[in-house]
Amino acid sequence: MNDTADQPYGPDSLANDVLHSIHPIPLTQALQLPRIVIEDTQPVIDNGQLAAKAVVGQPVTVTSKIYADGHDKMAVRILYRAVDEDQWQSVPMRELGNDSWIGEFTPPTFTRYIYRLEAWIDQFGSYRYELEKKYAAGVTIDLELEEGRLHLVHAAERSTLELRGQLDSLVKRFGEATENEAKVALLLNSETAAIMAKADNHAFLSRSLEFPLDVERELAQFASWYELFPRSITDDKKRHGTFKDVHTRLPMIRDMGFDVLYFPPIHPIGRAHRKGPNNSLTAGPDDVGSPYAIGSAEGGHDAIHPQLGTREDFRELVAAAAEHGLEIALDFAIQCSQDHLWLKEHPGWFSWRPDGTIRYAENPPKKYQDIVNVDFYAPDAVPGLWIELRDVILGWVKEGVKIFRVDNPHTKPLPFWQWMIADVRSQHPEVMFLAEAFTKPAMMARLGKVGYSQSYTYFTWRNTKAELSEYFTQLNESPWRECYRPNFFVNTPDINPPFLHDSGRPGFLIRAALATMGSGLWGMYSGFELCESAPVPGKEEYLDSEKYEIRPRDFTAQGNIIAEIAQLNRIRRQNPALQTHLGLKIYTAYNDNILYFGKRTADGSNFILVAVNLDPRNAQEANFELPLWEMGLADDAATLGEDLMTGHSWTWYGKTQFMRLDPSYQSFGIWRIKATNQ
Amino acid sequence: MNDTADQPYGPDSLANDVLHSIHPIPLTQALQLPRIVIEDTQPVIDNGQLAAKAVVGQPVTVTSKIYADGHDKMAVRILYRAVDEDQWQSVPMRELGNDSWIGEFTPPTFTRYIYRLEAWIDQFGSYRYELEKKYAAGVTIDLELEEGRLHLVHAAERSTLELRGQLDSLVKRFGEATENEAKVALLLNSETAAIMAKADNHAFLSRSLEFPLDVERELAQFASWYELFPRSITDDKKRHGTFKDVHTRLPMIRDMGFDVLYFPPIHPIGRAHRKGPNNSLTAGPDDVGSPYAIGSAEGGHDAIHPQLGTREDFRELVAAAAEHGLEIALDFAIQCSQDHLWLKEHPGWFSWRPDGTIRYAENPPKKYQDIVNVDFYAPDAVPGLWIELRDVILGWVKEGVKIFRVDNPHTKPLPFWQWMIADVRSQHPEVMFLAEAFTKPAMMARLGKVGYSQSYTYFTWRNTKAELSEYFTQLNESPWRECYRPNFFVNTPDINPPFLHDSGRPGFLIRAALATMGSGLWGMYSGFELCESAPVPGKEEYLDSEKYEIRPRDFTAQGNIIAEIAQLNRIRRQNPALQTHLGLKIYTAYNDNILYFGKRTADGSNFILVAVNLDPRNAQEANFELPLWEMGLADDAATLGEDLMTGHSWTWYGKTQFMRLDPSYQSFGIWRIKATNQ
Repeated sequence: MNDTADQPYGPDSLANDVLHSIHPIPLTQALQLPRIVIEDTQPVIDNGQLAAKAVVGQPVTVTSKIYADGHDKMAVRILYRAVDEDQWQSVPMRELGNDSWIGEFTPPTFTRYIYRLEAWIDQFGSYRYELEKKYAAGVTIDLELEEGRLHLVHAAERSTLELRGQLDSLVKRFGEATENEAKVALLLNSETAAIMAKADNHAFLSRSLEFPLDVERELAQFASWYELFPRSITDDKKRHGTFKDVHTRLPMIRDMGFDVLYFPPIHPIGRAHRKGPNNSLTAGPDDVGSPYAIGSAEGGHDAIHPQLGTREDFRELVAAAAEHGLEIALDFAIQCSQDHLWLKEHPGWFSWRPDGTIRYAENPPKKYQDIVNVDFYAPDAVPGLWIELRDVILGWVKEGVKIFRVDNPHTKPLPFWQWMIADVRSQHPEVMFLAEAFTKPAMMARLGKVGYSQSYTYFTWRNTKAELSEYFTQLNESPWRECYRPNFFVNTPDINPPFLHDSGRPGFLIRAALATMGSGLWGMYSGFELCESAPVPGKEEYLDSEKYEIRPRDFTAQGNIIAEIAQLNRIRRQNPALQTHLGLKIYTAYNDNILYFGKRTADGSNFILVAVNLDPRNAQEANFELPLWEMGLADDAATLGEDLMTGHSWTWYGKTQFMRLDPSYQSFGIWRIKATNQ
Repeated sequence: MNDTADQPYGPDSLANDVLHSIHPIPLTQALQLPRIVIEDTQPVIDNGQLAAKAVVGQPVTVTSKIYADGHDKMAVRILYRAVDEDQWQSVPMRELGNDSWIGEFTPPTFTRYIYRLEAWIDQFGSYRYELEKKYAAGVTIDLELEEGRLHLVHAAERSTLELRGQLDSLVKRFGEATENEAKVALLLNSETAAIMAKADNHAFLSRSLEFPLDVERELAQFASWYELFPRSITDDKKRHGTFKDVHTRLPMIRDMGFDVLYFPPIHPIGRAHRKGPNNSLTAGPDDVGSPYAIGSAEGGHDAIHPQLGTREDFRELVAAAAEHGLEIALDFAIQCSQDHLWLKEHPGWFSWRPDGTIRYAENPPKKYQDIVNVDFYAPDAVPGLWIELRDVILGWVKEGVKIFRVDNPHTKPLPFWQWMIADVRSQHPEVMFLAEAFTKPAMMARLGKVGYSQSYTYFTWRNTKAELSEYFTQLNESPWRECYRPNFFVNTPDINPPFLHDSGRPGFLIRAALATMGSGLWGMYSGFELCESAPVPGKEEYLDSEKYEIRPRDFTAQGNIIAEIAQLNRIRRQNPALQTHLGLKIYTAYNDNILYFGKRTADGSNFILVAVNLDPRNAQEANFELPLWEMGLADDAATLGEDLMTGHSWTWYGKTQFMRLDPSYQSFGIWRIKATNQ
């Protein structure tokens, strides 16, 4: 939770300072305190200051601890509504024991929702519980029956119209009954319970705060991203690729099963301090420079690099991509080249040094001599810069772009993101932002909390069974599961993972299996499917990095893993359990080289087991446990297994099984398990 | 955290509904959001709505996650004050890495305190960090030096008087320096840092909420309780013991090392429905009844049972106890016998049934036919009953009673406790309440949160190594460690633990060792020191329970464990690590019958190792690990060991050691460990 004073929550019926217990509260106010405690409600972020994440059409499971003094029965419900609706919807919660309550509702549209909980003492329910026990025990219940009659009478007195009529009729029937058995039956039957529930006066009603939920479209949680540099879509390093060239790639990318096609910045590239190949400080006249050095005389963040084509070309590409089922994602990198027009038009948006020069960007130990950063809180930047940046996004939204990958958001102020993302999404709720932050955990989580739909992760640096088990598990726990959707990129133009440098084709397949099975969101940067891995020696940078030069590729090169990627993405589409990072549990395989986990939908109807041999060089074997207990089956039960890579199927007998995963054949197994009667 | 809407926190500078992000926030308000995040601050309960616990004269360690965008250095401090002071005290926090900060302060008085955190961007500190790195790297720093000079100049401009003079002088010295080396030295030296810290403009200052702390006297955390029924202090079952008789017990109880002498209710006992021996429903004319059936024609909760003595006798006993270093604790049991005067004087404080009778108390499956409960929310009970109950407490405080053990607080409304305890303690901060609740965990914790100083626990039902390890560990974790001080009673008049029924003298010693070493707070009900354990067959009730009859005892009976209890309490007094339940860690002993843990003070100066053989019948042996890593020692280090029960001492060599614990000699070891140079 965020403790910052300037972000309190509301609304409240009592003055703030009264209940902040620095001083004892006066009795008059103690008498207004809720008798019923509602605490630890999930999903909630920062006590409701910020919105938890949900996806349209999928159930939101709400849990809470709810209790009061004594032994009375309680009734609890969830109230929810879209923020632009007036009417609350309502669903009851049920008790799990130990004061835990659970309930769920399914938001039908993607927009901001709010929900709250209400709990009250169910006086008639408590009465019924006691009557039933005493009647069963055979003790005298004359007094209890009279109390039951009075429950009906008082309920009738506080009701009107039809309900009152129903209650009066119950009282009449009760009066006409002569045997206790009939009276008890009348008081305990479900019709009476339903009528009494309608007439309930909600004794000691306690209300939670209102908690916001950011309900997004499905692609926020389940999507496969493909990244390419449009300028490299050429057969000749000397000929700059264009948007028109990218059309040729669309069928192949779609056939591999991707949903999102993401481009690094497409804006004019600065000339000043332009970087040459391999990040060299001096560029030759034909060097194309880094697309992250945004802005030249030809325009800035709202313009298109002329060598890529025209605005009309871009529109045509967005439309063609859509026809192939692909959405274009653009990069939002706020930095500027020193040629960016903003430096002249808005010098007050930057920090100038005493000699009139401007500080270039550093992200220690990295230096970006070709780019400079804006100063969000410079006196002249507030609010002009903030509005301009928001308008850059809105401009691209107008061109059909609904997904933005944001470069280094953790070096820009959180209040900016909180405002900008909410502002854009209030007009265009389909817009999503992916945070490219690689920094400490608190900030990683926070970016999700302030509005990012998805986030880059530590996945590329998690290699061992222990590391992966811990990380996958953590992402399924609070606060991560409420605020952070991990997009497992297997590589990026900035990250050539050391594991891939010398693990060969099996290494790429291992990482592809982990990413596609581990999260509903995964991504790859082109070249991965060709098992490209040549590094700058000793670094996780690519040699001859595409950030600084054009890199044509032969996408049919031998040894590629295109077919496997297509199959992995196909399996994801066919199995709902794989369409989210949630619902993952690590299971037991007795080999430290084999990561073995399961993904299961909340209703249990789809259950996938994944085993990955993390050793790219040697076959590994293990006994492992089928999680029969999750399916309510005995340890000796038979289950149906199906290999989703090969289509083979079989019957497993019992809990303990054996596997052998050989990188020379296939480093992983993906099995669908079902009960024999399922 | 508590999500209930009617308990919001404050104060705030922005309207509540603005930042509760149901709607996007306007830009004007986003610009006022804190740039620096302060989150997960501890100790904090329910976002600061309720007070965390602390003890006078002992450091309060505050931790928090604090971070912002970018790479600037931050400065953080704790501000704290007693609630009746105007001036804040301030201590700096230091960074532990990964955005975690820590600091501590020691409240000098027992009263309500508040603290808050402040964080800002340390602009000069960030500058120094960069200058130092660049100077060390040997790069050109002319521009950096000029920036440093401007830092000094601007600081001078915003300062006044003496500080301005100091800064002007620094600027002058800087101007006179000719070599870069001298300029760098001037900018980096600690004198300059101190002056600049004073002149700091606290850029982007972010403030946390104010968090309350309930600072209590030491006895809230470290005390040994002894419970007895005064009426049983007699040598003849037929002669009702009196307060005067209790004087004879004081020296022996004090010699055993107890601090608190606790009596079940001392008020007049009702006649109606009086219970006979062993909870029988009919009492004979000489049966004394349960002291929990409070109230008769002779008075109610504010009166003294005539057979115990006079008010003057009680005062004398309180005084005599104090002379023996003992405080008297009274029971606060809100229920009434059916003879209680309140039933006639305030019938509106009770729930009446349709036939004009009153419902007797039930705590399913237990039935208390001799007592009836008040109805806190009956229309006529608000607020008269609440005030009357508070005044009962205040009346006994006037008689010198500062500690109250509260019977079944979980069946009375939480708002009552929250108000009453704070109200009493605002007038008498030395007063403490012990919650006798045995119910689900959420309510157990909540009673601590609303103000109880101490709580009964699940200790008596935790017997195995796994159960005890988990429980002791949990009490050291959030939220328990901030809100709940466990008082480990080894038995009570209501709980005759099954483990003791047939484990003999070793069983009693095992439980005494676990209680005294496990928590700073422990308690026993008389008879435990005599190894009394005869149960009602099949129940955890005592046979011939003292709740319903007078039970004289021979406190010198053979086989008693008085000497051992005295020694355990002596060890507690001599070792600060044992004076709290906090600072406990489970360590490794390779035997599932041996629980092995350490208790260590925060400064490491006192470190006690405890091993308990949980098997009362057989000797158990184990290899075990000395926690040398906690002391910063290598695995082959020598350490000094001392047996605190026997006084023997020795040198341990290395990490792995061997123990043998034989119940026929002693079931536990309590060892003080020190580094050889300590």
